Amino acid sequence: MNNMNLTMLTDFYEITMANGYFQNGWKDKTAYFDMFFRKVPDNGGFAIMAGVEQVIQYLKNLAFDKDDIEYLRSRKQFGEDFLEYLKNFKFNCDVWAVPEGTPIFPNEPVVIVRGPVIEAQFIETMVLLTINHQSLIATKANRIVRAAQGREVMEFGSRRAQGYDGAIYGARAAYIGGCIGTACTIAEKEFAIPAIGTMAHSWIQMFNSELEAFCLYARTYPDNCTLLVDTYNTLKSGVPNAIRAFREEIVPKGFRPKAIRIDSGDITYLSKAARKMLDEAGFQDCRIVASNSLDEFIIRDILSQGAEVDLFGVGERLITSRSEPVFGGVYKLVAVEEEGRLIPKIKLSENVGKVTNPGFKQVYRLYDRVSNKAIADVLTLNDEAIDENRPYEIFDPEYTWKRKTLTGFRAQKLLVPIFEKGKCVYESPSTQQIKEFCRAQVDTIWDEVKRFENPHKYYVDLSKKLWDIKQGLLQDYSVK
Amino acid sequence: MNNMNLTMLTDFYEITMANGYFQNGWKDKTAYFDMFFRKVPDNGGFAIMAGVEQVIQYLKNLAFDKDDIEYLRSRKQFGEDFLEYLKNFKFNCDVWAVPEGTPIFPNEPVVIVRGPVIEAQFIETMVLLTINHQSLIATKANRIVRAAQGREVMEFGSRRAQGYDGAIYGARAAYIGGCIGTACTIAEKEFAIPAIGTMAHSWIQMFNSELEAFCLYARTYPDNCTLLVDTYNTLKSGVPNAIRAFREEIVPKGFRPKAIRIDSGDITYLSKAARKMLDEAGFQDCRIVASNSLDEFIIRDILSQGAEVDLFGVGERLITSRSEPVFGGVYKLVAVEEEGRLIPKIKLSENVGKVTNPGFKQVYRLYDRVSNKAIADVLTLNDEAIDENRPYEIFDPEYTWKRKTLTGFRAQKLLVPIFEKGKCVYESPSTQQIKEFCRAQVDTIWDEVKRFENPHKYYVDLSKKLWDIKQGLLQDYSVK
Repeated sequence: MNNMNLTMLTDFYEITMANGYFQNGWKDKTAYFDMFFRKVPDNGGFAIMAGVEQVIQYLKNLAFDKDDIEYLRSRKQFGEDFLEYLKNFKFNCDVWAVPEGTPIFPNEPVVIVRGPVIEAQFIETMVLLTINHQSLIATKANRIVRAAQGREVMEFGSRRAQGYDGAIYGARAAYIGGCIGTACTIAEKEFAIPAIGTMAHSWIQMFNSELEAFCLYARTYPDNCTLLVDTYNTLKSGVPNAIRAFREEIVPKGFRPKAIRIDSGDITYLSKAARKMLDEAGFQDCRIVASNSLDEFIIRDILSQGAEVDLFGVGERLITSRSEPVFGGVYKLVAVEEEGRLIPKIKLSENVGKVTNPGFKQVYRLYDRVSNKAIADVLTLNDEAIDENRPYEIFDPEYTWKRKTLTGFRAQKLLVPIFEKGKCVYESPSTQQIKEFCRAQVDTIWDEVKRFENPHKYYVDLSKKLWDIKQGLLQDYSVK
Repeated sequence: MNNMNLTMLTDFYEITMANGYFQNGWKDKTAYFDMFFRKVPDNGGFAIMAGVEQVIQYLKNLAFDKDDIEYLRSRKQFGEDFLEYLKNFKFNCDVWAVPEGTPIFPNEPVVIVRGPVIEAQFIETMVLLTINHQSLIATKANRIVRAAQGREVMEFGSRRAQGYDGAIYGARAAYIGGCIGTACTIAEKEFAIPAIGTMAHSWIQMFNSELEAFCLYARTYPDNCTLLVDTYNTLKSGVPNAIRAFREEIVPKGFRPKAIRIDSGDITYLSKAARKMLDEAGFQDCRIVASNSLDEFIIRDILSQGAEVDLFGVGERLITSRSEPVFGGVYKLVAVEEEGRLIPKIKLSENVGKVTNPGFKQVYRLYDRVSNKAIADVLTLNDEAIDENRPYEIFDPEYTWKRKTLTGFRAQKLLVPIFEKGKCVYESPSTQQIKEFCRAQVDTIWDEVKRFENPHKYYVDLSKKLWDIKQGLLQDYSVK
């Protein structure tokens, strides 16, 4: 899977532009691109960065094979000199990225690419696709996991995913965001994400009675027995039959039942009643799993109503991020080099919020030294340093009279080198390490920023130097 | 791409159940499964079937390789006899499906699988994932194309797709649904779907002026020149510069300009003003492309306001079906064979709408012979025939007093054989043929069913025989 050549998974305009630059003698002109996003999905306070590992795999495999060249030739739109260039194409750019699992905020670069313009431009589609998709799902998973308040959440959505990779990398992103596992088997095989699953309703239907179905399952898996109790009637049939199967098939063998699963009906009511029945039967340790079109809002609701659920299985609303299935990351030119000089570039827009931040940048996250909470992110010029030992004044880039002087902070660079001159220099953490890193990083976010409704807006400010450059460019263009 | 082994892209419970059936000596017990869906996305009147070709590829490649077996062994949950069985696993089922491009309706089987229960059950996840995803996007594309009222629609969404296959097969499904092409290059290479694209804003930004950027592009592609006009100011800068570039670089070479593209701002206002400017410059034949978070509702609105758009580029709201990103197809056991006898199975639910239709079935679509419009779909027993030469009474399966006698109709079986005993017997049409078939089939749907708001509910009825069997099973279970 890691070796699939996705070179031609690109918007066609990347190729027409590449040929244009090539014909203009600009193939080696150095350009700088930022990937950033403008709005947190679901009106949340922050998103979770994910997908860097797959961007790395993509860039390592980037090459036009014979079929690709033949296909492009068949378009009768490109010259042989350009096709020859593509045949020998080698990715030579520098890439920086925010590590996976990091909370990220609107308008800050999360990926920066510097290099020959054709190369740096060409990878736009795949960088966006990969980071947009996995960040979307990691962000949604993190919301759902936080709503579960310490209870476990499993990702169950493969069958409703938008394509195979939607299921596979969606399971990966959900795990990074905090799910404990997935129903998607290949995700365990590929990423060592625990895959879990027991039975569908069809298992019950195959037998002449629910009890028979339960008993056979319990005999087959006495040490790991979860029974689905809602095929006919949860409280009148499912739970009583489960208890009987546990008693007859599990306990005599010296095991304890694992769980029952409720997949329909009123989860709050049914889980409370089932809990009582299980407890009275002596199965206080038998867990209750709920799974039925759940999301963070429903989970929050049913928990506030006292639902007795130990583990949530979340499917379609997680794997598609149904309430907001688009993560709107964009990839914008921010600078070019001309005769060794860096020329910052800006993109204007009638919508003020869509004006880009120019220049070659770094992002610093400032943490309070005492609480270890993140206070603000500051976009700086790439070679600018923030001195942790001196007071640092941040200000709102739009309402510049809003100012705050910070002391006692720790400043951390968010963007780390991933590729240097086309060579991968990043030591990839395991998916498990990323998940743990994410958990620790989300802990640095104030609760006010974590709210589902009206979260506090986290500061993403510009350094004075960067702000001045932006204002200068805005002036230049407004004079025009 | 067609040869990727996706065998392990399966919910883990398919494997635990498979082992359970295997241990119970049931591996060759014949089971029947239906795939169907319950609700048309976006409250529409019908959906478009898509994804059959990828299901075929999946089933042809279904095999557990050494790595898969090794991985399953490492779970320490399965016996060697079962792993040996998987090693020799061969798909032997019969499969029927509704051809791609066909309008489909809730509660009718669109795929039927018959065969050894382990096999028929195992493929659930991938059958659902594949058909759910592509039908979702084909359905959305068809809505958007209908909203465009004969104007062309391009799929532009790769960068916001949910994973690589989301982009690739999404482009395929969008094309089936009626888009004329895609920005996704690999979709042209793989499926011969026309890929189109010209320039990003970054192209403009790379140059010292917009005019310079336009002129260079026009010089490079004089015979196929579309210019993006909204980087700085559409009407004051973009369109005038485009006209100048057309005059200086295109016309002298004997070509005509292709189009301008507007990607932001008020499309209605800007397109009308741009149209006027182009016409006055003598470029009446220069088309206007619009692209900016469009969907069927926005397109309908701006067209009703007189927008002068010839081609719509639709991105994130198409490729994710943003307003409803889930197609809720399910896969349910409907019958088993016991000692050569067919035993229909039903799944009850407290929600009446979720009770399944039991038995081995066929779906007939009845067309009016004069208008060639589809009148009703009738679910029958598989061996039941509908005589076109005699009046046929249909009735509402819930409100059975609602009846209608049809005459002068043509009855067409919707489900066609795809696999027979594991061998593919279906001659796959090309993606282009599917697209054309879809167009013709959508023409058979009454306008009342095509409405976006409150569409007429198309009849999906049961034959008397099937209805009787269902009632019998409901009685049996209610006595219980």
